[in-house]
Amino acid sequence: MGVSNMKIAAVQMQPRFAQPEKNRILIRRYCERAAKQDVDLLVYPELCVSGYNFVSKDQVFNLAESIPDGPTTTSLINLADQYQLTVVIGIAEREGLNKVFNSSAIVNPRGFVGKYRKIHLFAREKEWFQAGNNPPKVWSLGKAIIGVLVCFDWAFPEATRILMLEGCEILCLPANLVLPYAQLAMISRSIENRLFTILANRIGTERTLTFTGRSQITDTHGKILARSGKDRTGLIVAEIDPRQARNKMLTPTNNIITDRRVDLYHRLLQP
Amino acid sequence: MGVSNMKIAAVQMQPRFAQPEKNRILIRRYCERAAKQDVDLLVYPELCVSGYNFVSKDQVFNLAESIPDGPTTTSLINLADQYQLTVVIGIAEREGLNKVFNSSAIVNPRGFVGKYRKIHLFAREKEWFQAGNNPPKVWSLGKAIIGVLVCFDWAFPEATRILMLEGCEILCLPANLVLPYAQLAMISRSIENRLFTILANRIGTERTLTFTGRSQITDTHGKILARSGKDRTGLIVAEIDPRQARNKMLTPTNNIITDRRVDLYHRLLQP
Repeated sequence: MGVSNMKIAAVQMQPRFAQPEKNRILIRRYCERAAKQDVDLLVYPELCVSGYNFVSKDQVFNLAESIPDGPTTTSLINLADQYQLTVVIGIAEREGLNKVFNSSAIVNPRGFVGKYRKIHLFAREKEWFQAGNNPPKVWSLGKAIIGVLVCFDWAFPEATRILMLEGCEILCLPANLVLPYAQLAMISRSIENRLFTILANRIGTERTLTFTGRSQITDTHGKILARSGKDRTGLIVAEIDPRQARNKMLTPTNNIITDRRVDLYHRLLQP
Repeated sequence: MGVSNMKIAAVQMQPRFAQPEKNRILIRRYCERAAKQDVDLLVYPELCVSGYNFVSKDQVFNLAESIPDGPTTTSLINLADQYQLTVVIGIAEREGLNKVFNSSAIVNPRGFVGKYRKIHLFAREKEWFQAGNNPPKVWSLGKAIIGVLVCFDWAFPEATRILMLEGCEILCLPANLVLPYAQLAMISRSIENRLFTILANRIGTERTLTFTGRSQITDTHGKILARSGKDRTGLIVAEIDPRQARNKMLTPTNNIITDRRVDLYHRLLQP
């Protein structure tokens, strides 16, 4: 492996609804398996501790935990240290006495790195969660700069664009997809932003919802480096050089950042 | 055909370099063929009167013509009336004594509709053309609201997003593609903006550049309704109901316009 290379991976799993203890055991096992393959960056699906298809806001609140003080993040901080991994994982995040966010926590061997609260809520998530009120941001992790979105954020090209402008080299997308669009959209996000993407989706059915798997990893030209099927669990892994995402020259005279016509984009900020 | 349905089409052609008279004959023939198939909206490739791979700025200037007073637009206004068509066509547009734009003209049976000057110039186009200084805009044409971009504009999701926010139902993209990305990106543009797209590309080789064909028409869910090969000429046609593009509800509670987090997108307008 080249000195700048790293191994990135997605976990495609089937969480058990409302069984956080069992799901944390599953989560730990994927950490172990990833470590055996020398993975540096491991992305889990959205809400993979609680499950997804809640019956009420009370139920979400009871299944939610704080970040970084809750049991999942605390335990992952230890695992990240033990296995020398960076982990991105979707967690229902409780704040105070009545707020719950659809969040992702990021931890690495040095401890808690940060969290992202989903800003575009899907379907009934609008009943269950508060939307995040901070723009997507990036974290510099030594070998790479990563950005995190959650699931339905895929549908808003603005979100990935903001991450790219902030220097994101690897977009991590914990997801619980039920629609068939995100895989293709992530290829487009790679092409138009020249970055790697890791889409970690779940499988299984919770009452009326069936989750669609097909987790994938793309390179900076939209090539699929690894992908999973629609109904299997397991890791997908790819070895990449994240520095490729720093090259924003599409031709010798076309830089995808400086070619943007910011002077003509003001309509994007009008309601 | 339902009362709201319309037939939309792309011309995949091989212009002859620097032979505008011959290319106008070709262009006329495609109008005739489209009319025989009852096409309502016909999109030609970028720069299909002049050819693309110029040797100098002088050469571009000499091949350029004014819009709407030049010979191509004038002749198309007659053809649009004769055949009851709306036409979108890529033309090198001369303005005054030294400005040339990579433009598209839009004409319909009532006459000249408008023009769009490409805002994101590709590779050597930066030597040959001025970039347009107006944001992309839409035109309401009775049966549908159309928006026009040109070729490399595909790489900037902002451009299509602006058109969608202005009400665009059908995105017309005259192109001279040499890279393999735009076809997939157009599918993503359809999905994320819920609009139809018509990508009209050319084929053939001009010195060092080979154009890649594969013109395509997509629906509002990113489904390919019609496509051409990489080295054949001809029309591709699809029948659509443009009103489908007015439905921006991805789920009963997700409207892709009102779900945008304009309050968090300000980074998009920073250099």
